[in-house]
Amino acid sequence: MTEFFKSIEPIQFEGTDSTNPLAFHHYDPDRMILGKSMKEHLRFSACYWHNFVWPGADVFGAGTFERPWHQPGNAMELAQLKADLAFEFFTKLNVPYYCFHDTDVAPEGQSLKEYADNFSAMVDMLERKQQETGVRLLWGTANAFSNPRYMAGAGSNPDPKVFAYAATQIFHAMGATQRLGGENYVLWGGREGYETLLNTDLRQERKQLGRLMQMVVEHKHKIGFNGTILIEPKPQEPTKHQYDYDCATVYGFLKQFGLENEIKVNIEANHATLAGHSFHHEVATALSLGIFGSIDTNRGDAQLGWDTDQFPNSVEENTLVMYEILKAGGFTTGGLNFDAKLRRPSIDAADLFYGHIGGMDTMALALERAADMIENDQLARHIAQRYADWGQDLGNDILSGHHTLASLAQYAVNNNIAPQKVSGQQEYLENLVNRFIYR
Amino acid sequence: MTEFFKSIEPIQFEGTDSTNPLAFHHYDPDRMILGKSMKEHLRFSACYWHNFVWPGADVFGAGTFERPWHQPGNAMELAQLKADLAFEFFTKLNVPYYCFHDTDVAPEGQSLKEYADNFSAMVDMLERKQQETGVRLLWGTANAFSNPRYMAGAGSNPDPKVFAYAATQIFHAMGATQRLGGENYVLWGGREGYETLLNTDLRQERKQLGRLMQMVVEHKHKIGFNGTILIEPKPQEPTKHQYDYDCATVYGFLKQFGLENEIKVNIEANHATLAGHSFHHEVATALSLGIFGSIDTNRGDAQLGWDTDQFPNSVEENTLVMYEILKAGGFTTGGLNFDAKLRRPSIDAADLFYGHIGGMDTMALALERAADMIENDQLARHIAQRYADWGQDLGNDILSGHHTLASLAQYAVNNNIAPQKVSGQQEYLENLVNRFIYR
Amino acid sequence: MTEFFKSIEPIQFEGTDSTNPLAFHHYDPDRMILGKSMKEHLRFSACYWHNFVWPGADVFGAGTFERPWHQPGNAMELAQLKADLAFEFFTKLNVPYYCFHDTDVAPEGQSLKEYADNFSAMVDMLERKQQETGVRLLWGTANAFSNPRYMAGAGSNPDPKVFAYAATQIFHAMGATQRLGGENYVLWGGREGYETLLNTDLRQERKQLGRLMQMVVEHKHKIGFNGTILIEPKPQEPTKHQYDYDCATVYGFLKQFGLENEIKVNIEANHATLAGHSFHHEVATALSLGIFGSIDTNRGDAQLGWDTDQFPNSVEENTLVMYEILKAGGFTTGGLNFDAKLRRPSIDAADLFYGHIGGMDTMALALERAADMIENDQLARHIAQRYADWGQDLGNDILSGHHTLASLAQYAVNNNIAPQKVSGQQEYLENLVNRFIYR
Amino acid sequence: MTEFFKSIEPIQFEGTDSTNPLAFHHYDPDRMILGKSMKEHLRFSACYWHNFVWPGADVFGAGTFERPWHQPGNAMELAQLKADLAFEFFTKLNVPYYCFHDTDVAPEGQSLKEYADNFSAMVDMLERKQQETGVRLLWGTANAFSNPRYMAGAGSNPDPKVFAYAATQIFHAMGATQRLGGENYVLWGGREGYETLLNTDLRQERKQLGRLMQMVVEHKHKIGFNGTILIEPKPQEPTKHQYDYDCATVYGFLKQFGLENEIKVNIEANHATLAGHSFHHEVATALSLGIFGSIDTNRGDAQLGWDTDQFPNSVEENTLVMYEILKAGGFTTGGLNFDAKLRRPSIDAADLFYGHIGGMDTMALALERAADMIENDQLARHIAQRYADWGQDLGNDILSGHHTLASLAQYAVNNNIAPQKVSGQQEYLENLVNRFIYR
Repeated sequence: MTEFFKSIEPIQFEGTDSTNPLAFHHYDPDRMILGKSMKEHLRFSACYWHNFVWPGADVFGAGTFERPWHQPGNAMELAQLKADLAFEFFTKLNVPYYCFHDTDVAPEGQSLKEYADNFSAMVDMLERKQQETGVRLLWGTANAFSNPRYMAGAGSNPDPKVFAYAATQIFHAMGATQRLGGENYVLWGGREGYETLLNTDLRQERKQLGRLMQMVVEHKHKIGFNGTILIEPKPQEPTKHQYDYDCATVYGFLKQFGLENEIKVNIEANHATLAGHSFHHEVATALSLGIFGSIDTNRGDAQLGWDTDQFPNSVEENTLVMYEILKAGGFTTGGLNFDAKLRRPSIDAADLFYGHIGGMDTMALALERAADMIENDQLARHIAQRYADWGQDLGNDILSGHHTLASLAQYAVNNNIAPQKVSGQQEYLENLVNRFIYR
Repeated sequence: MTEFFKSIEPIQFEGTDSTNPLAFHHYDPDRMILGKSMKEHLRFSACYWHNFVWPGADVFGAGTFERPWHQPGNAMELAQLKADLAFEFFTKLNVPYYCFHDTDVAPEGQSLKEYADNFSAMVDMLERKQQETGVRLLWGTANAFSNPRYMAGAGSNPDPKVFAYAATQIFHAMGATQRLGGENYVLWGGREGYETLLNTDLRQERKQLGRLMQMVVEHKHKIGFNGTILIEPKPQEPTKHQYDYDCATVYGFLKQFGLENEIKVNIEANHATLAGHSFHHEVATALSLGIFGSIDTNRGDAQLGWDTDQFPNSVEENTLVMYEILKAGGFTTGGLNFDAKLRRPSIDAADLFYGHIGGMDTMALALERAADMIENDQLARHIAQRYADWGQDLGNDILSGHHTLASLAQYAVNNNIAPQKVSGQQEYLENLVNRFIYR
Repeated sequence: MTEFFKSIEPIQFEGTDSTNPLAFHHYDPDRMILGKSMKEHLRFSACYWHNFVWPGADVFGAGTFERPWHQPGNAMELAQLKADLAFEFFTKLNVPYYCFHDTDVAPEGQSLKEYADNFSAMVDMLERKQQETGVRLLWGTANAFSNPRYMAGAGSNPDPKVFAYAATQIFHAMGATQRLGGENYVLWGGREGYETLLNTDLRQERKQLGRLMQMVVEHKHKIGFNGTILIEPKPQEPTKHQYDYDCATVYGFLKQFGLENEIKVNIEANHATLAGHSFHHEVATALSLGIFGSIDTNRGDAQLGWDTDQFPNSVEENTLVMYEILKAGGFTTGGLNFDAKLRRPSIDAADLFYGHIGGMDTMALALERAADMIENDQLARHIAQRYADWGQDLGNDILSGHHTLASLAQYAVNNNIAPQKVSGQQEYLENLVNRFIYR
Repeated sequence: MTEFFKSIEPIQFEGTDSTNPLAFHHYDPDRMILGKSMKEHLRFSACYWHNFVWPGADVFGAGTFERPWHQPGNAMELAQLKADLAFEFFTKLNVPYYCFHDTDVAPEGQSLKEYADNFSAMVDMLERKQQETGVRLLWGTANAFSNPRYMAGAGSNPDPKVFAYAATQIFHAMGATQRLGGENYVLWGGREGYETLLNTDLRQERKQLGRLMQMVVEHKHKIGFNGTILIEPKPQEPTKHQYDYDCATVYGFLKQFGLENEIKVNIEANHATLAGHSFHHEVATALSLGIFGSIDTNRGDAQLGWDTDQFPNSVEENTLVMYEILKAGGFTTGGLNFDAKLRRPSIDAADLFYGHIGGMDTMALALERAADMIENDQLARHIAQRYADWGQDLGNDILSGHHTLASLAQYAVNNNIAPQKVSGQQEYLENLVNRFIYR
């Protein structure tokens, strides 16, 4: 056991007066809000991937982190060291959940057999660590994008053997997720897209992906996995174009393959902004389409065109997101995962804590402000009032199918309708929201 | 009759040796390519809107064009003057098609009745002009976005009376389109979106729009309109977010309302790029989803975040677009419309011709190069070869549903599969395309 | 006198407990912060342009506002009505400053003589209104971009007569600004850029602009104008490329023409983001280059590529901006102007107040939080510590010029230097800032 | 010696009729154009960095290339193998120039001494390879961004020891460049920027960078290096903001430190587009400011927000770039370098050739078309005519300083000037350019 996190004490709630950077100032896990504890509302999760796999490298430079488990050594021993430290981190951070890719936790090995053996051994260890610590699994997933074999896609690869390889990883990762009591299983198609249309058959690749999603859903039912299957939309990066571009695109895909009641979305804030949407938009859109599942809360940088995966720090932005989620009844199997990474120069063990503490306090504040908005839901009343006429005669006649285009035109001319403009009051509503945030 | 276009002679094909800027250098209407004339392939259309309605204003400055029909006067007389000049323009430009919004061609009037009367009178005139000139109607549409009554949407408006007003315009515009032999009817929901989520009920607005689209389709069948109904995707502008964001989004919308076999898309190059896609991508996507209809070929500016609606001038970009269209069998009811506008300082009558001539020559060159690519379709063979294994045993077993996730994983482990990487050869293929363009 | 604003009472500070949307909740003009009143710190200004000139039109639709002064009538009488209502608005809003373009306040007329006469008459009226109300002029400017004559630029126009026309307007606008006690004079080159490089001589246009700026500075000294000359950077829109792209670009321009001590910048938040920068970046950059002057605080929309000119509503963003300004000693002649416009559907007179109240409360909160940060300036201490070694031997030897490249390389090898990595602590610092904002 | 490139024959010009993908179709090195050979005009260079250092990794996946020199082994032996293969590549590709970073060609070692020794030994070898092959050095540079020590900048680092380390590398790289007859020395400040303003002193970092640039220039003169010092602008990536954002920004920096006659720019196409500019714009801007030096011709992807570094394939775009360069007299010490990389799935040795061949043919075509434009320079005449009045009385009086603002206003009013609008003819000019490209 290394001393990597030794100097860090478990993070406690100390309130807004505390200046201790290694304490929560707003996240008070047991505080009750709208009848549930903050912990139950927020369902925080930390990830294996950015915290324990990424070495702090970028395209222009080598890894800066030099963690103990990044040193040379026996792969399985390093994986165990990593797991020990990961659970020490999750526990000290006091997150109830974590999540992982198969290849985050176990060495890939040189063959599928080695992969399966390594992964199985590490799942045994994760099971023990979960029992010891009480940390639970929000979701598992398979990494079918990092290995060079996936350079032209996994499910959408021109080679069916690559599809089969990915399917095998998914089979094992779903099994591991079920065994570890995971509440969701995530599919992020990191390379399910194209680099150039010149060598791509869009129709064929879509058919392949559709079949893969169906196989995953069939398998879920066969093994009796109770969790939710989630697709994580992303518009591009690493590929030039990714097929699960955004929530609206995923919805069309699910409809085509009859999966709209089987699969939901895991929305990442930074993926939303890369797709040209606000995070708020993607959450509201998924809710309106009935496919909202879970959240990766990592923010992007409005000036940069790649996935910076920063920790959330905007209460303003996230209050609106939490308001939508609360209004829809809150999370079911989903949660708030930090698929976030430190800035490359943030090399200290303490930085891992600072990032997550800031993110958790931000989301706790957002929850608190959103709950206030819900308790006196002026926004909802304003919206209901705005559309009230759709509950009256003309509105009903239109939506119910009573009116044809011709009969409606006749009605309009006969009644010489002349609709009155009504202010949209955007500025008034923006001020209203700020009054909740800065009360 | 004014002398506005008097000095311009009808535009003729003069070939590449000509330096006459008021001649075609590549568009030779009757030249046969792959068994059809250029004219039949390209189905060029010019628009009323940008050429004869827009005064050359932008958000920061007043109109620069000062056309004869923009001067003060009797509204119907000015509309007639405009129609005379528009058909003089279409004829001299030698485009076989034109297109219009209802309010482009006739004054809106002060009531729905005046609107209907004015429009009807102008449709009479358009019918005569079409007969006199042989110019045909590619599509008609209703402008349900410019009048202040539509400031919060037309079909998606919180007020059902506004929905009814728009429906009335659509009813008349569909009737006019049918009467004028239009080959398509277009729906562009310029304000069907939101300015802020704070005052918006996404689910409600989507339901309204879905019903409107169904009414349009039902009406089409009732009146026996043979043309195609088209939705024109656009991600934003004038609204912050528009519901028909891009082709993939429209596909999901059509699936939800059971309209995927009834409505196709009219793709605008500049709307594609505003949505974060290449024009090529949107065309290829629509074709792969079976919803490709028609094209507005106006380009954007890669450095600007608004709809610049410039004339196309890239043969490189459009060769790939025409290649996709030719490979799919070419246009049926659709065509190549220039929904393009002059730069605000291009104030001369001749500039209207320069813009369209450049666009037509660009698309003619693109057609010619694409036809060469089709005749010796190395790209198609390359792609077929790349996916060839999906036609073999393993590929068939996966796509046919023979394999479950579990059986496939078992297969993979038993056979210890280790897929070989194969180069994607993007650079090779890019060079191949350039060899066709610069032969 | 119309009753347009009659129902609106003067806006008062009512504190955070008030739910009155027509009251300030944070802006308490006389509250002392760091030894100055909020009013003196913030120096709020409202603009004539968006509030009283823009009709609520956009590129796709007609004006929605239909204000009394937008109705048909005698131009000078309407200008007087507008001035009366503008000052009623400024007074009820309780902003100490306003600003205008020459053509906002007076009709342009048909000739330069008419222009000068109209403008002079309206300046008389503005002078009276200022005396009656106590509202003062933050800055004046000339509109040399809206009239069609400026379609190819004003100072950078290929026609020297257009340069002369613009110079005449600037001459009069500077005179009016001086007479009205304006504290700054602003130059925004709305069309000082290019639409296409194909017809543009960059070197020539830059020379013209350089001479124009020199003439303005010379004139300022000749007439004894005590205010500051400000350039307002913007990267594009309406032109494809504008020469005063951002603060760093303006700095290079000023250096070339020897004006870096004569002209400062008026930074607009939305122009910063259009240029690919954060607002914070542009303010910090201008301060570091010694050219910071004033602010237009209107925000953009991160998903839209044009100038949305929305009222500021992010305390998070503006706290950092105010922190930079306070740290540098606060505004001198500059202030916080709202060059912001209502959303097009916000058509009520009250909406004009909601927008400004929200903006003023946002900036007041930002001031308050920034002042807290300054009082216990942990950020500044952190930064000072981070660069401390540059005050030691090696750092001094490098910056003072003691070391050549060769001597420094020799030193490095001789001492076998091996610098230690130190965490950048970005997440820690982001949390620190949030602790000030959400204390 | 490995057989890596064995199957590739030296690339020959075969003309447009050839379908050999491993031949030039347009680049005919000895063909004379405007009195110089294509080879002398274009001065092609290939880079060490992307071709021989980058393993085909991206942020989401491991290296796909698995080159012989990426295998485990003795670092110096692998460096020698790499150099042998690099020169085999340069020779077979028939590029007259190459370029490198110090750490591309030699192992960094564990200390500055090891670094210097390794580098010196490899420079000996490069010198021999240059003599054997006739390949020459376009430029050398130092990599002061990849090693973790540079995570917070090199010259702009808060630690002067890091500055000293970087200065040592630059000292050696300049020496190597001089010894190898390099024609330029390049400075790309990959990390000379900030990740967050919260921990950054902009003024201090700018001062440090200014001093570093001065040291480089002083050293150049001291050692008698005849080449040009070049700064390569880039707006961001890897850092959030890079100080040498674009050409206009670099110009301001050079002016501040008195270096505008000493340092020029190396413009990369992809960096231009990341900065929000067209490549054409950056080249034209640098030429107009007198700081144009050299080019990295690698293109970006208009839909992606990171540096994709693709090979150029647009003749349309590059014709305008070459037109500007030819019009200014062509390259002096600069050239056309391919700082381009293969797509990650392009894993074959042949792909390295395809990429460069496509790029070289593209630029050769661009040169040819641009030369045609120059021979009958209608664009230049059009521009001269457009600004002709600036050579007449009023224009001269303004630019010469004869007119003050007041005298010019007086002149304008006295003469009642009323400038006439003249069409900008953008569409006409775009057609003109296309007539040269598609003649």
